[in-house]
Amino acid sequence: MAEPRLNHQWRLAAFPTGRIKASDFQWVEEPVPELKDGEVLVRAQYLSLDPTNRIWASGVENYLPAMRLGEVMRAGGIGVVEASRNPKVPPGTLVRGLLGWQEYAIGDGRAFNLLPDNPAIPPTAYLGLFGHIGLTAYFALLDVGKPKAGETLVVSAAAGAVGSLVGQIGKIQGCHVVGIAGTDDKCRWITQELGFDAAINYKREDVREAFGRTCPKGVDVYFDNVGGDILDAALERINLHGRIVVCGLISQYNATDRVPGPYNFAQILMKRARVEGFIVMDYYDRAAEGTAALGKWLGEGKLKYRVDVVEGLRNAPIAVNKLFDGTNTGKLVVKV
Amino acid sequence: MAEPRLNHQWRLAAFPTGRIKASDFQWVEEPVPELKDGEVLVRAQYLSLDPTNRIWASGVENYLPAMRLGEVMRAGGIGVVEASRNPKVPPGTLVRGLLGWQEYAIGDGRAFNLLPDNPAIPPTAYLGLFGHIGLTAYFALLDVGKPKAGETLVVSAAAGAVGSLVGQIGKIQGCHVVGIAGTDDKCRWITQELGFDAAINYKREDVREAFGRTCPKGVDVYFDNVGGDILDAALERINLHGRIVVCGLISQYNATDRVPGPYNFAQILMKRARVEGFIVMDYYDRAAEGTAALGKWLGEGKLKYRVDVVEGLRNAPIAVNKLFDGTNTGKLVVKV
Repeated sequence: MAEPRLNHQWRLAAFPTGRIKASDFQWVEEPVPELKDGEVLVRAQYLSLDPTNRIWASGVENYLPAMRLGEVMRAGGIGVVEASRNPKVPPGTLVRGLLGWQEYAIGDGRAFNLLPDNPAIPPTAYLGLFGHIGLTAYFALLDVGKPKAGETLVVSAAAGAVGSLVGQIGKIQGCHVVGIAGTDDKCRWITQELGFDAAINYKREDVREAFGRTCPKGVDVYFDNVGGDILDAALERINLHGRIVVCGLISQYNATDRVPGPYNFAQILMKRARVEGFIVMDYYDRAAEGTAALGKWLGEGKLKYRVDVVEGLRNAPIAVNKLFDGTNTGKLVVKV
Repeated sequence: MAEPRLNHQWRLAAFPTGRIKASDFQWVEEPVPELKDGEVLVRAQYLSLDPTNRIWASGVENYLPAMRLGEVMRAGGIGVVEASRNPKVPPGTLVRGLLGWQEYAIGDGRAFNLLPDNPAIPPTAYLGLFGHIGLTAYFALLDVGKPKAGETLVVSAAAGAVGSLVGQIGKIQGCHVVGIAGTDDKCRWITQELGFDAAINYKREDVREAFGRTCPKGVDVYFDNVGGDILDAALERINLHGRIVVCGLISQYNATDRVPGPYNFAQILMKRARVEGFIVMDYYDRAAEGTAALGKWLGEGKLKYRVDVVEGLRNAPIAVNKLFDGTNTGKLVVKV
């Protein structure tokens, strides 16, 4: 019998308090176990780092079962099938799934999406535009936000993976689009390259005043990735029958104390606004529809995206904080 | 020329801080002015006291233009036309409109709804079941809350004018209905007479535990009239794709400091819940539809309601606080 393959993993060692620290994880080396009938062995290529990873690591019941200590850190990713005891998933297949922070993932063949072998699409796109990111932007904006031509759409974390697509889709719908980001470089990128009408640098500007400057007709749709003060400022400007898409609340994921909801909550009543949460997994059964639309717009040159690649699984616990300190632009992935 | 009629009025003298006080209003006696062409003179019979009166008195921009000091306190009411220079609104007609806290109101004939002369309907019903209260319960629950048979509906201020109807309409829809009220008498009334499945006395019980006891399958629709801690407890139990109708936030209308939104705001994201505000005036164009359904249910014995009558315009500033200290049951009106 040949020497068994070794797998390297980051296992959750402690539920983080505040920001994620490397010491919240344990670096583990263990042999890859034998496959059982129906299982496949996937060698990870890229892992997706997303703000929601912080929610998963919290050990608190959320939209997925709470993680337990000792588990491999949960993460989406793409990889190639190296060995298979499932005839439907032959070796060499490119797949996507919850691979976790590890080099090798084993799962029932049904646990993975089989991806087409299309040399025109870089594999990382399956974690971005043609993955959960693109589908989030597409369905959360169009199905929940329901923007109409001529309306004002404001997006927070606008230079992030989801936000940068949301703003561009808003432009395709004919909206006046305002993006909120934390550096002048990001603000320039979204206005000069992505076609947003205006940008707010929330770290340098008075956000309430900046809403007035950039949204002279008020806010019809606020696409929220952050929560906190910016959500409050958006509520202050929300128009009659405005919509707030709650796609993320990154400003509070690292909080160690209870975080109050928006002080302007009463605006929901006064303006008969609709506030609605969105998690992309509710829309996976409509993935083909979203991907087709996104692919068409990409082909027409109407969508641009950036991928921010961090090298090395070893760096995952550090790299994930780029999402929280605002140092990434576009989709953040780890190259394993 | 005959002696002019005298009008007595409560005019807003100060924007209230905290609870409404009699000293926030000035009792004014003045002659009723001459009618102009198209105008009618209405002698008020009953005035409607509603939690939203506190919002109106605040002088802050809300869903209606802010009141200014010196204006007659804004209030809905019903009355009889005593004199008319509008051929479409002859003397003797029963009308409804924003009469204000005064004995006589003058307005363009188009400012008033003409009510049918139906001896089977007591006039106060036009301020309750067949007025803004009934339409609020009907459209806010059915159009915004969208309850389905078998779902769990929770209503706060459940012995109030709107809440007591909402729960009964929820039963008609086949829901498991839980009401929250502040006295054991109210809890008995809604369960034993109105048919609610369970009640929570929020002043005596731990509300979070009581939600667990009364909503074993979680909360699908939370119809909120109060905000605050009870809203937070409802969010804690909200089911996947649950709906929260924000019909009122009475717990914060008297607040003198900024009030934080619900601490469990993140549940909107985790459970993909929808939170939506409701103000009845958006539905006045569908009033006939709502009134027809409510009348049918009333005739079938499926709806009961109570009217709480306070005698004397003079008592309006004191009586309105019954809504805030929980001492009224059903629809509160002032008999002028």
